[in-house]
Amino acid sequence: SYENRSQQGVTWTVVSPIIFTYRIIQCRDLLDPGNDALLWGHVGDGALTGAARNGSKPVRRFVVIDETVHRLYGPRFARYFEAWGVEAKILPLATTEENKSLELVAKILEEVHEFGIDRRAEPIIAVGGGVCLDTVGLAASLYRRRTPYIRVPTTLLAYVDASVGAKTGVNFAGGKNKLGSYVPPVASLLDCSFFQTLPRRQISNGLAEMLKMALMKHPGLFRLLEADGRKLLCAKLQPCDAISGSSSEQEDGAVASTRIAIETMLEELAPNLWEDDLDRLVDFGHLVSPELEMQRVLPALLHGEAVNIDMAFMVYLAHQKGLLTGDEKERIIRCMRGLELPVWHRDCTLDLVRQSLQERLKHSAGSLRMPLPTGLGRA
Amino acid sequence: SYENRSQQGVTWTVVSPIIFTYRIIQCRDLLDPGNDALLWGHVGDGALTGAARNGSKPVRRFVVIDETVHRLYGPRFARYFEAWGVEAKILPLATTEENKSLELVAKILEEVHEFGIDRRAEPIIAVGGGVCLDTVGLAASLYRRRTPYIRVPTTLLAYVDASVGAKTGVNFAGGKNKLGSYVPPVASLLDCSFFQTLPRRQISNGLAEMLKMALMKHPGLFRLLEADGRKLLCAKLQPCDAISGSSSEQEDGAVASTRIAIETMLEELAPNLWEDDLDRLVDFGHLVSPELEMQRVLPALLHGEAVNIDMAFMVYLAHQKGLLTGDEKERIIRCMRGLELPVWHRDCTLDLVRQSLQERLKHSAGSLRMPLPTGLGRA
Ligand SMILES: NC(=O)c1ccc[n+]([C@@H]2O[C@H](COP(=O)([O-])OP(=O)(O)OC[C@H]3O[C@@H](n4cnc5c(N)ncnc54)[C@H](O)[C@@H]3O)[C@@H](O)[C@H]2O)c1
Ligand SMILES: NC(=O)c1ccc[n+]([C@@H]2O[C@H](COP(=O)([O-])OP(=O)(O)OC[C@H]3O[C@@H](n4cnc5c(N)ncnc54)[C@H](O)[C@@H]3O)[C@@H](O)[C@H]2O)c1
Ligand SMILES: [Zn+2]
Ligand SMILES: [Zn+2]
Repeated sequence: SYENRSQQGVTWTVVSPIIFTYRIIQCRDLLDPGNDALLWGHVGDGALTGAARNGSKPVRRFVVIDETVHRLYGPRFARYFEAWGVEAKILPLATTEENKSLELVAKILEEVHEFGIDRRAEPIIAVGGGVCLDTVGLAASLYRRRTPYIRVPTTLLAYVDASVGAKTGVNFAGGKNKLGSYVPPVASLLDCSFFQTLPRRQISNGLAEMLKMALMKHPGLFRLLEADGRKLLCAKLQPCDAISGSSSEQEDGAVASTRIAIETMLEELAPNLWEDDLDRLVDFGHLVSPELEMQRVLPALLHGEAVNIDMAFMVYLAHQKGLLTGDEKERIIRCMRGLELPVWHRDCTLDLVRQSLQERLKHSAGSLRMPLPTGLGRA
Repeated sequence: SYENRSQQGVTWTVVSPIIFTYRIIQCRDLLDPGNDALLWGHVGDGALTGAARNGSKPVRRFVVIDETVHRLYGPRFARYFEAWGVEAKILPLATTEENKSLELVAKILEEVHEFGIDRRAEPIIAVGGGVCLDTVGLAASLYRRRTPYIRVPTTLLAYVDASVGAKTGVNFAGGKNKLGSYVPPVASLLDCSFFQTLPRRQISNGLAEMLKMALMKHPGLFRLLEADGRKLLCAKLQPCDAISGSSSEQEDGAVASTRIAIETMLEELAPNLWEDDLDRLVDFGHLVSPELEMQRVLPALLHGEAVNIDMAFMVYLAHQKGLLTGDEKERIIRCMRGLELPVWHRDCTLDLVRQSLQERLKHSAGSLRMPLPTGLGRA
């Protein structure tokens, strides 16, 4: 910080860097008691782990888990913590889009407070889809001004998107994610085997965000989704060796596509964790979709579906503006259909688009940025 | 960010720096329509100011103001914004310690949302004591994951302490500041003329935090408070030239003491904005005081009073441990009395101290740091 004196008094200008460090860890068999990632993955190897493990203090963990996920995997979580002798409080919650609110955050905070945690050594664990991870992330970032938390995504969308960045949030006053913070988890633990119990539509939902990254910056990922999208959808993004038992030299399509999606996402998010830079490729598909999601049309659109409708609209726009050839446009739309994603919605009217642009403009200091594709995998 | 591949999959380690920049601006006549600091002080000089001023968009500001301060200064604020042609929404609230809660944050958020602001160009302004600044700061840090806000402290305590760092917060589940964030304001605008309407006890309250910095790291400030504390208290920290109209070569005692308090505070806070480092001199006086404040003894203790009782206890402790001479101890206690601060409380029992240490230990990853004076202005 530096100071500047004048007649009026002193002016101090404070420049203070904060360094966020977090780990995104792909692992198999997260719930296998032989795997210590769920307990110690955030610490990394070495000294601290040893110290923490050998400490005389009993290990405690507070876990918030999506109700549906709890029904499916609850017993395995309980066995895991039991095997490690961990005093775990497991709190199943109906973390739905309708419940994604400040009230739910307050409820989590009350339970956290009652359980009592060491804010330096006992991270809160969130297990579920993006709604659960966003809500728990916000609660953790508020508790004692910041309590570490861990994300365990169980949907494809949360795996490739909500687990990569720092954003937390809840809906407010009819607006999507209007309240929140930019506080990354200490670790995101990614295990794709959770996808096995996901409905097919939820897989498509996640593929939409992967397609977004493909369209914006990775021709290879686009070709992969174009050629094998349907196969990946049917196999629920499970790697072949997990199914056949064999492991091959060449990287599997499911493994490659999620890896590339996360890498491209990280390239965009990590240097701009607090979104101070308004030029954001990751915002593609997110201009009209928030309005669309909040219309609460029935049957409700999933996030990725709304994003895809937004992207399809922009692809047509890009074609009209001469940024995409007719052939490129067709290939993109065909790929979307292959992923079983909607490319049009009767509520996605020009009026809605105009209204969305207006809303965005209001919060962009006067200048609107709008990422558009300029080829297959380029923007 | 860098990656590391293994059999289990990829591990990405993300290292992402965020740079916070904010300004602390001392100014006279903040409410004089000739002074543009309240509107543009956060922007700094130069291009942006001009652009913003000459923009065709009408200027709008959302202002939350402590009810008492509104009663005293409301008309002047209204006139100020009127003179600038600013569309201002002024929201007076009873920002008391009892109301300092998540509910009050939600209420502010609803009003902000209804008013509608450009989250990039229209900072929320908070005017009042520490309670108001902390609560509005939290609301702003949550709105759209971060909306800029400005602090205008009207108490001495908020001027030398709550306006210097990044902390926001509200009470929760009977605990002081249990929820909050570390998001600095874009600017703190300091005008000491607000102190003129402060009750004497509120001045003493602020002097306690100044004494804290003096004891921890500034022998000169201690000598100043020791010699002139009473005079500063009587003059409500108003600079002499403001009263007599003359301006002297030598820096005024009131000006010097607040300047040094802020500078020493900044030295400690700026490199450790998120309090990752547990060795914090600014925590002196804040070990037992939170418990003491939350006891809700009647008549309730003010924050600075509780801090002073805590400090007095620690001074005795430091003397017992041989860190302070008997003479040094006496001088400190005498200085405290001169500032009309309580040095003892019947509820500050050994039991309470033990309980406070326990509570602190629970959140310190096993090792407790406790700053103690080792001389007059050294720790
Ligand atoms: N923080 C971020 O950066 C970010 C990024 C993208 C999306 N989001 C948010 O994420 C939310 C959408 O996430 P989502 O699509 O995961 O929705 P979701 O959390 O609602 O989960 C979708 C459904 O799948 C169920 N489910 C979860 N895991 C399952 C499993 N393994 N097996 C069977 N069922 C399972 C859930 O119970 C739920 O009904 C939105 O609120 C969005 O705003 C956040
Ligand atoms: N964020 C931080 O770093 C930080 C630092 C220190 C304290 N705090 C917090 O600040 C709070 C204490 O702040 P405070 O002492 O300013 O208390 P406060 O906000 O309660 O104000 C004290 C009283 O003074 C009145 N008042 C304010 N300005 C006045 C004026 N100019 N004239 C007459 N009356 C006026 C208020 O109405 C109130 O009754 C605590 O909640 C504490 O946790 C925060
Ligand atoms: Zn999205
Ligand atoms: Zn304090």
